[in-house]
Amino acid sequence: MDGSTGQDVPMEALRRAMAEAAAEVDGALDSLLPAEEGEERALFAAMRYATLGGGKKLRAFLVLEAARQFGVARASALRVAAAVEMLHGYSLVHDDLPAMDDDDLRRGKPTVHKAWDEAIAILAGDALQTQAFLVLASPETHADPAVRADLCLALALASGAQGMVGGQMLDMAAEKATSPLDEGQIGRLQLLKTGRLIEFSAEAGAVLGRAPDRARQDLAAYGRAIGAAFQIADDLLDLTATPEEAGKATGKDAGAGKATLLGLYGPERARAHAEALVTQAKRHLDDLDERADHLRSLADHVIRRRN
Amino acid sequence: MDGSTGQDVPMEALRRAMAEAAAEVDGALDSLLPAEEGEERALFAAMRYATLGGGKKLRAFLVLEAARQFGVARASALRVAAAVEMLHGYSLVHDDLPAMDDDDLRRGKPTVHKAWDEAIAILAGDALQTQAFLVLASPETHADPAVRADLCLALALASGAQGMVGGQMLDMAAEKATSPLDEGQIGRLQLLKTGRLIEFSAEAGAVLGRAPDRARQDLAAYGRAIGAAFQIADDLLDLTATPEEAGKATGKDAGAGKATLLGLYGPERARAHAEALVTQAKRHLDDLDERADHLRSLADHVIRRRN
Repeated sequence: MDGSTGQDVPMEALRRAMAEAAAEVDGALDSLLPAEEGEERALFAAMRYATLGGGKKLRAFLVLEAARQFGVARASALRVAAAVEMLHGYSLVHDDLPAMDDDDLRRGKPTVHKAWDEAIAILAGDALQTQAFLVLASPETHADPAVRADLCLALALASGAQGMVGGQMLDMAAEKATSPLDEGQIGRLQLLKTGRLIEFSAEAGAVLGRAPDRARQDLAAYGRAIGAAFQIADDLLDLTATPEEAGKATGKDAGAGKATLLGLYGPERARAHAEALVTQAKRHLDDLDERADHLRSLADHVIRRRN
Repeated sequence: MDGSTGQDVPMEALRRAMAEAAAEVDGALDSLLPAEEGEERALFAAMRYATLGGGKKLRAFLVLEAARQFGVARASALRVAAAVEMLHGYSLVHDDLPAMDDDDLRRGKPTVHKAWDEAIAILAGDALQTQAFLVLASPETHADPAVRADLCLALALASGAQGMVGGQMLDMAAEKATSPLDEGQIGRLQLLKTGRLIEFSAEAGAVLGRAPDRARQDLAAYGRAIGAAFQIADDLLDLTATPEEAGKATGKDAGAGKATLLGLYGPERARAHAEALVTQAKRHLDDLDERADHLRSLADHVIRRRN
């Protein structure tokens, strides 16, 4: 789509870096998840299936690239990156359940409750959430217990009732609401549902690096802005991509009357808004040197991707 | 039932102490759970319903009594006690789901998916788990970040794939197995499914009090032993109590061919085994003074209770 512009060189480098990081994160996940053995093996297999070998691992990449700004040891950053993907994976497994979004397909493969059954999907999601906190709290992740406790606290704030799960609840409530949500309500819904975990991912690199508060806030703000842009891009993709391109069912949101900025603004204004968010995101990186170039390219990539 | 023995004085004191502690823990839960307001209020209401005002709060009591041995501030211990009850509450909400045990009644009230719906039950369980880690990782729980990280790590080990959720998976696999489990398999199943969280509850008091390793190990061993005794007592209760006494459906386990030591041993030998576990549990308290008397009475209580 974006075949011949001058932007392609950094974008190609970004794609390569993301693919390399995703492979490294898969390696970390493989070593941090229970091996597929014993009487519980179906549980362990489902946990691995939900996290390994699929997806762009955007959140993990954010952790790694943010951590790079502060000279964090790669092994530490990879553990935190894997933990974020476990948390994200749990949320997808539970979101796909029949009582929730009832999806049969995820990343082009059967969802966990289709490949196994609902009970195993519930348990695998539960255990992936626990495993994320286990990894963050482990001494191997960082020698300083204050960093470990801080990571656990920040992840819990981002992903629980006041974060991701709260956002999921808002989304369900919106589908049943009689009047459409306004801009502020949609913004809050999406900040909670997907934004907070993306924000955490960028911020976690600064926490790992014991960065000054200001740098930590900048990375969090960067994460929030690209999270919001990502959501709009996702909605545009749902509208325009084929299921093959997206690797999942598309066109469902419009049909379900989902509360999105795209629905409120229309495609043109939504795209302009996403572009403004990307500009804003990059401005939060102004204090960082060229080591942050991948983070800059990522902001651009977020609204140009096709899956 | 145990109307006229000399043991009744400490047992009555224990009952009073447990009731007082349960009320205090309810107060802590009330302040640590999101208030029932906003568009997400059904989620918050379900989280509160699943944890507040019901149950014996055995795990919370263990945290509080263990913490008392090491002079831990009551406010700290209460936060950890509340966190354990959130974790336990999440496990009950998910266990009760139609795809799992499919129970309509819990503590004499409709289960969360009956009172609301399945989606809210899934989300409320998810958010209760997160909230437990949030509380443990918060600076208000303990000034020392090493204690907070240690609590998060220990809870994650006790409750995830290598603990409670793994045990739940073993239990499901056992129901489908063609040959019955042996003693060792049943012991492992129950240690994971219920034992580890009870063990954590006793151990957490020692972690909060930065107790020496030896004291921490003693409390963990005490918790493991009463956890195992508790499980046998629970199975005996399921066999003999009426649904009114137990506050939930009874007689289900035998019908479902559940893997229990009671099923393997029969009532008499199972009861003798539970009594041996109680003796063993109390022996792990030998280094503690009379402040541990409630923990000693609790060990006795575990196998004498009627609900």
